[in-house]
Amino acid sequence: MDPSYRPSLVHKNSSGSVALPFAGSDLVLSPSQWSRHVVGKISSWIDLDSEDEILRADSETTLKQEISWASHLSLQACLLPAPKGKSCGNYARCVNQILQNLNNMQLWLRIPLVKSEDDSMDVNSDNLIDSWEIWNSFRLLCEHHSHLSIALDILTSLPSANSLGRWFGESVRAAIINTDAFLTNARGYPCLSKRHQKLITGFFNHSVQIVISGKLVHRLPKGNTAVASNSDGNNVDGGQGHPLRPYLDYIAYLYQRMDPLPEQERFELGYRDFLQSPLQPLMDNLEAQTYETFEKDTVKYIQYQRAVCKALLDKVPEKEALTTTTVLMVVGAGRGPLVRASLQAAEETGRKLRVYAVEKNPNAVVTLHGLVKLEGWENIVTIISCDMRHWDAPEKADILVSELLGSFGDNELSPECLDGAQRFLKQDGISIPSSYTSFIQPVTASKLYNDVKSHKDVVHFETAYVVKLHNVARLAPTQPVFTFTHPNHSTDRSNDRHKKLRFEMPNDTGSAMVHGFAGYFDATLYKDIHLGIEPSTATPNMFSWFAIFFPLRTPICLHPGSSLEVHFWRCSGPTKVWYEWGVTSPTASPIHNSNGRSYWVGL
Amino acid sequence: MDPSYRPSLVHKNSSGSVALPFAGSDLVLSPSQWSRHVVGKISSWIDLDSEDEILRADSETTLKQEISWASHLSLQACLLPAPKGKSCGNYARCVNQILQNLNNMQLWLRIPLVKSEDDSMDVNSDNLIDSWEIWNSFRLLCEHHSHLSIALDILTSLPSANSLGRWFGESVRAAIINTDAFLTNARGYPCLSKRHQKLITGFFNHSVQIVISGKLVHRLPKGNTAVASNSDGNNVDGGQGHPLRPYLDYIAYLYQRMDPLPEQERFELGYRDFLQSPLQPLMDNLEAQTYETFEKDTVKYIQYQRAVCKALLDKVPEKEALTTTTVLMVVGAGRGPLVRASLQAAEETGRKLRVYAVEKNPNAVVTLHGLVKLEGWENIVTIISCDMRHWDAPEKADILVSELLGSFGDNELSPECLDGAQRFLKQDGISIPSSYTSFIQPVTASKLYNDVKSHKDVVHFETAYVVKLHNVARLAPTQPVFTFTHPNHSTDRSNDRHKKLRFEMPNDTGSAMVHGFAGYFDATLYKDIHLGIEPSTATPNMFSWFAIFFPLRTPICLHPGSSLEVHFWRCSGPTKVWYEWGVTSPTASPIHNSNGRSYWVGL
Repeated sequence: MDPSYRPSLVHKNSSGSVALPFAGSDLVLSPSQWSRHVVGKISSWIDLDSEDEILRADSETTLKQEISWASHLSLQACLLPAPKGKSCGNYARCVNQILQNLNNMQLWLRIPLVKSEDDSMDVNSDNLIDSWEIWNSFRLLCEHHSHLSIALDILTSLPSANSLGRWFGESVRAAIINTDAFLTNARGYPCLSKRHQKLITGFFNHSVQIVISGKLVHRLPKGNTAVASNSDGNNVDGGQGHPLRPYLDYIAYLYQRMDPLPEQERFELGYRDFLQSPLQPLMDNLEAQTYETFEKDTVKYIQYQRAVCKALLDKVPEKEALTTTTVLMVVGAGRGPLVRASLQAAEETGRKLRVYAVEKNPNAVVTLHGLVKLEGWENIVTIISCDMRHWDAPEKADILVSELLGSFGDNELSPECLDGAQRFLKQDGISIPSSYTSFIQPVTASKLYNDVKSHKDVVHFETAYVVKLHNVARLAPTQPVFTFTHPNHSTDRSNDRHKKLRFEMPNDTGSAMVHGFAGYFDATLYKDIHLGIEPSTATPNMFSWFAIFFPLRTPICLHPGSSLEVHFWRCSGPTKVWYEWGVTSPTASPIHNSNGRSYWVGL
Repeated sequence: MDPSYRPSLVHKNSSGSVALPFAGSDLVLSPSQWSRHVVGKISSWIDLDSEDEILRADSETTLKQEISWASHLSLQACLLPAPKGKSCGNYARCVNQILQNLNNMQLWLRIPLVKSEDDSMDVNSDNLIDSWEIWNSFRLLCEHHSHLSIALDILTSLPSANSLGRWFGESVRAAIINTDAFLTNARGYPCLSKRHQKLITGFFNHSVQIVISGKLVHRLPKGNTAVASNSDGNNVDGGQGHPLRPYLDYIAYLYQRMDPLPEQERFELGYRDFLQSPLQPLMDNLEAQTYETFEKDTVKYIQYQRAVCKALLDKVPEKEALTTTTVLMVVGAGRGPLVRASLQAAEETGRKLRVYAVEKNPNAVVTLHGLVKLEGWENIVTIISCDMRHWDAPEKADILVSELLGSFGDNELSPECLDGAQRFLKQDGISIPSSYTSFIQPVTASKLYNDVKSHKDVVHFETAYVVKLHNVARLAPTQPVFTFTHPNHSTDRSNDRHKKLRFEMPNDTGSAMVHGFAGYFDATLYKDIHLGIEPSTATPNMFSWFAIFFPLRTPICLHPGSSLEVHFWRCSGPTKVWYEWGVTSPTASPIHNSNGRSYWVGL
């Protein structure tokens, strides 16, 4: 649109017959070019929160006209100029009105990537400039609308790593790098600082489009001078002779330099930020395909094998190896992977085993029988088709091996199952795992929040989801929640738990939005052999578990220097176990999932 | 229940056959006595947020047992002990679980009425004791459950008036006055300080039950000593010889001393805190009953008559009184009250009038014709059955009289109607009213919030309601929002508006919850004759308008020293006018009613 156009300058009487001063008609490109290759750019002069009433009215009219034109062209997205001041209420109101009537077009709000590194904790300080705050106000006013995203303007200097980290939990669609932000390398070519490089790599990993903007500001070495003289363009079009070509080449070089994704990550690519309901293996019977997938996790079974080895060596001294037979029971044997791991451990240590494979799923028992026959284990392995909580065992076990853990440790009711199985474990018997602990940390996860919100009910906000976390900002280190130890010889056997946790955000993060909590577990299989997905100690190359996500019905904004206090409860009734959770500081949230009304695990 | 009872001390094996140690069986009172006269009192030792795990578990078990017993007895309410410390997460979780399964019983959480009068603005100060904060956390965790209310413990000293004022917007059901809080009058009898008296009177006005608790601590003058010796009772039973009788007598005296309710308040009693949808008199036709009610508001029509008098005197000098006939048009004449007021003004001032009564409701026109005939006004009054926006007037008016105002001034589309009627007003003509302004103020209104919430949809949270505000705390003085002036000779005739307001709470209030905004209007009829419901300038004894209430989807907690920034927009489309509103500070709320999706007024 003609940059000098202002609706208020158009003569009132003639307005009915005058065409809007757009640069060209829709015929200059084909419809598919418009919709595939062009992002609309809204006039940058608009200022809907100006003190000047006429400018404000002109801005609103122009914004609506341009968006309407972009819709007419079926553009996929429009770039909205950054809010001019700290106040953006009227801009947000107008954009929100537009969003209500938009079909598929995305609106990308430009936000300059600035945050003053003020150490002051004073939230009310007028000097604190953190463009994230503007974004946060804007998107709250627009109710986290899923068609409202961010285009970050990358400037010469960057905020701290913690501050940058927040954006990876937000819906950033594009990063606009001004040519001014580039340095010059020894050969005269543009390049970026190490910190910029790292940021851009992060954007690549999160499918953020990189846009180069501005003029050619680098004097290129000889041979490129002809190009340098033509420095009027504003955007990259990929053409060979484009004046911004050197910048583009550099960005392409950064992309090509990236390490290829490890196999596990490639496998998990399709699951990123995709919410799944947790399994209910106790109440439901798993399907063959599910067994098939999990049995492929060799890393996990190697850890189990190592644990059984250690346990066998502890139980049976070398000199008794030939005379003593250890009774090992696999409770929840499934199609047999732990039976195999245990027998391999026996072979490795030269210890003798008698194995009971207890499995409640009759379909898995069919496979178990086949396996035992195929491997010739008939004399060693006894298959028991029964729920471990009700089995009347013919003898007691030395070692109880199980894999009943969910992403949050106890969330698939391992404690209840193992308590039930403990009846047939000898007083000095060993449980593998011997203990497990759940962990949580607060996260920004606007994508997950919007997915939960799209169901428009409370139930989905009070459900925990299994999810491969990707578009997420982890705002504080994890903290342990519930621990269970087996066997449990205490007199009070309640598996109900209550934990109050307080998370402190790093001071240099700035404010951030907590959309919920990421949950993990770590299990001690036996002594120093552990297994888990808690990020700082996660077992490498294990793919059986994604994290768990506990959403918050209303996201909570954490300000610098304030801390987040959250309660988690594990509750139980006659037929089910459930979690409740709620934030008590800085402000109280509702208690989520009271009485397990929305989400529970059946006993 | 036996105060020494602790579930953990009961021998495990015998628990199946042991009766709970309740004071007596349900047979000591009749069912109707239990349900009408008894409020249950939960053991005061319980502490669900204790560091002591056993005490915590005992507390939860006991709380659930006692509530269950109270339900069994069909009690109307149970008194819950005040949270012991600053942390109440687990207590709230447990109460919330109970609330989910409760049918009709109310739970009254005891809250001591304390707030340190610390002037410090530091929100994070650990020394700030404000029991309202505890209540607020507790009820947020319980999601504003409508069965959770407050029993305030009144102590010897009271917080500031602003701090006390907050409680009148909360669901306070009882005020428990300890006998220690009473002073002694000159004759040796108990009495209360002036500030306590005022508070108790406020409670009477809000139907808060007064409970007297504690021992007889006053040595009564001779003649009452026999009673004083028997000072073991804990609660009032109303019996003649009750040891707390002197306190009760004093409270009864305070009640009897109160001024009787003025007639208007008595009339409005049934409407208190009852949400009504605003009228749509433009789109709908009012019913006879509605006209009947509003016509009775003599105060209003006296103001109109005074305004018309002044206008006539200004228009027609004394010497032209007999020769000049003023053309007065009543636009929206209804069943004729403004026609009558205008004619009375003409008579009072001795000026000659020609009146046009324009009314779009054909049913009201029937009554108008009857009135004109009955009063013999045929030569003076011409009845026009037409919408004023479309009427083709035979001549222009000197004075335009209308009563198109809603509780929020322009919310019944007076601006649009009068703009339409302005065509037939002379260039120097007068509009009565000549201008009107809307006002808002933030309020605590938990009852209204819960009523809106009970609909379980967004639509009701984005609707403005007409309501007689009573159980409401006004947190800051009103501020003007939109002003309209008639006639409007400006070239830009848009009636769209945008106003950003910033409310500062008095420092001594403490934190408070904003559930929404109360709205009012004030209209200048002519020169110094005004009419309105803005509290500080409200026209006395006028009953045509209640306030308007704009709810917030998520209540906003205001901390001391922070201010509330809110935006109101008046927007319009081809067929409707609507408001949007949203808070931008301390945190941003969603924009309410975007595009008038939930609430609008038809053109």
